[in-house]
Amino acid sequence: MKNFAVGPVEEFGETLAIGGERTPYFRTEEFSAVMLENERLVLEFAGAEAGARAVFLTGSGTAGMEAAVLNVLGEGDRVLVVDGGSFGARFCRICGVHGIPHDAIRLAAGRQIREKDLAPFDGKGYTALLVNKHETSTGVLYDMDLLADFCRRNGLLLVVDNISSFLADEFDMAALGADVMIAGSQKALACAPGVSVLVLGPRALERVERNRPKTFYLDLKAALADGARGQTPFTPAVGILRQIHARLESIAAAGGAASEICRTARLATHFRSGIRGMPLELFSESPSNAVTALHPTNGISAYDVFLELKDHHGLWICPNGGELKDSVFRVGHMGALTTADNEALLAALGTVLGGRGTGTAAAAPGNRMANP
Amino acid sequence: MKNFAVGPVEEFGETLAIGGERTPYFRTEEFSAVMLENERLVLEFAGAEAGARAVFLTGSGTAGMEAAVLNVLGEGDRVLVVDGGSFGARFCRICGVHGIPHDAIRLAAGRQIREKDLAPFDGKGYTALLVNKHETSTGVLYDMDLLADFCRRNGLLLVVDNISSFLADEFDMAALGADVMIAGSQKALACAPGVSVLVLGPRALERVERNRPKTFYLDLKAALADGARGQTPFTPAVGILRQIHARLESIAAAGGAASEICRTARLATHFRSGIRGMPLELFSESPSNAVTALHPTNGISAYDVFLELKDHHGLWICPNGGELKDSVFRVGHMGALTTADNEALLAALGTVLGGRGTGTAAAAPGNRMANP
Repeated sequence: MKNFAVGPVEEFGETLAIGGERTPYFRTEEFSAVMLENERLVLEFAGAEAGARAVFLTGSGTAGMEAAVLNVLGEGDRVLVVDGGSFGARFCRICGVHGIPHDAIRLAAGRQIREKDLAPFDGKGYTALLVNKHETSTGVLYDMDLLADFCRRNGLLLVVDNISSFLADEFDMAALGADVMIAGSQKALACAPGVSVLVLGPRALERVERNRPKTFYLDLKAALADGARGQTPFTPAVGILRQIHARLESIAAAGGAASEICRTARLATHFRSGIRGMPLELFSESPSNAVTALHPTNGISAYDVFLELKDHHGLWICPNGGELKDSVFRVGHMGALTTADNEALLAALGTVLGGRGTGTAAAAPGNRMANP
Repeated sequence: MKNFAVGPVEEFGETLAIGGERTPYFRTEEFSAVMLENERLVLEFAGAEAGARAVFLTGSGTAGMEAAVLNVLGEGDRVLVVDGGSFGARFCRICGVHGIPHDAIRLAAGRQIREKDLAPFDGKGYTALLVNKHETSTGVLYDMDLLADFCRRNGLLLVVDNISSFLADEFDMAALGADVMIAGSQKALACAPGVSVLVLGPRALERVERNRPKTFYLDLKAALADGARGQTPFTPAVGILRQIHARLESIAAAGGAASEICRTARLATHFRSGIRGMPLELFSESPSNAVTALHPTNGISAYDVFLELKDHHGLWICPNGGELKDSVFRVGHMGALTTADNEALLAALGTVLGGRGTGTAAAAPGNRMANP
């Protein structure tokens, strides 16, 4: 099977090799050194400002989202949430569970955010904005400059769920003035799922220090204190943290975040060229490099496309759930994929959809035979 | 390195092979089947009564402890906590964070619980008891029959942290009348760390249904609902869940929980025979099969024994933290260890402690040469 899902994604050989190694005992200087370098490289790749910190939680990306809300925000806040899909809605539900006053900026699925969407909330006394920079459910990459300007103008704290976009799209935390960034192990880091990463800028760190959140496991004060010596309060997913270490080092050696983003962008562009002429529409007004969300225009169910590719072509793409189940599927461009893999997927898509692409990537019919 | 730590423990080859495989896309019938069988086998091995359910959380064992407290208990409860070490203290802190009224039954480190420790709390209107069946920090296996009797007599809900004892010591959830059992991936299951398992009996399930806990990520109502079809609310640690599956199947094929417990007990007995004559004292009044906690009697620092074995003998044992750092170290008997591994450790211990064992396991000096 070749994995074009949106996460977990196709792993690199080096990552898999570590997955096959025995888990070392971790209350050691050796493991602390690994963790301290993990923190250093994540801060560098996020473009975090001086004084920022990164912590690693054992849990899904959602654990990271909830940890950010619980530790950085409180009942005294008035929070704005950009809600254009299921991950925006998740931020709203997390605020709801913890009694944090919040309003949603609702956007139709697939829509980019614009000045006029923000205007009604300008100067209204909000204290923080939560956004999934890439709303993974619809493939929309939000205009972060617009949102950062709005936050600066209104003095809002900016919390960015960058889970499916970190190392796939540009992100400069310091330049944006973002206070929190959340990432995950299984997206562009291309490691096993199970670790969520948080980067906290100075304003967020101050709030963590001041807050007494109602959580034991997701308490960032404890994670930051132990993290200062390269450790964690509880037994972490040691193997995944070692995979992250190798991957961060390998990205650093290849030129850093920019080169990984460029590699992902090239794969996305190549794939999007290849679907020209197929009965497919881009679902997102503003696609991330990480994912192409597509709507079949010939009446075929998007979920059936997923099943066909899985059961008869050895390919995983990513179905949507809920209301979009039959109308949208997603193709990921993160992880150990190549243009040859794209060609195989394009050929299979041509078969399943009953149409042939006419775009650039489709110009080499010989390659289409790579379909397993 | 050979791993005698208390978790993560030495993995089996089959588990490592899965660790080296690519992570499959998981919103599929194939993965659901894996998860449903995981639930079935955990329920069987825990001796859970009919109608019980098991869920799998991506997180450390502490996430499972907090999920149990948050979802099953509430501010209307009056909770008793058996606190004989750092994991008992952790249950107290979790109750404290969530404003759940609780009292601790404090026991000196290494001490078994007795009738007289419980007597002051008899008939005092408590509603639940929390216990770490094996207080991992000191190696004490509590008398569960005594505690179960007390709970039955007083009508208490019984929540058992069985993280470091599941599949290492006998446990019959139905016979004990226990309502919740917590386990973890990295102890006797001998998989990578990162997954916590909860088994909920009918009374606990009713409470979960009734409660509205202040947590999004650790909400067991959502986990139970998705688990009914073999899925999870958030992206789980897929690889670790696949490791757990293989391991549960392999234990089932070898005769089930009883045979795995017996294997671990044999290793513990063999090791404990081997240390006779060494300047070591058993620290626990009532050792679990999982761990032998030891106190060096010749003045050498327990932490130095850990460092010596790690740096010069290729062996990880498990140091203690806090007040016990210099006086206690622990040797684990879970996972892919053999009596030959025990011999290697015994030989190295003999060297480090400057004393030779005279017990049974030490009777074959040739074996001592297995020391790497």
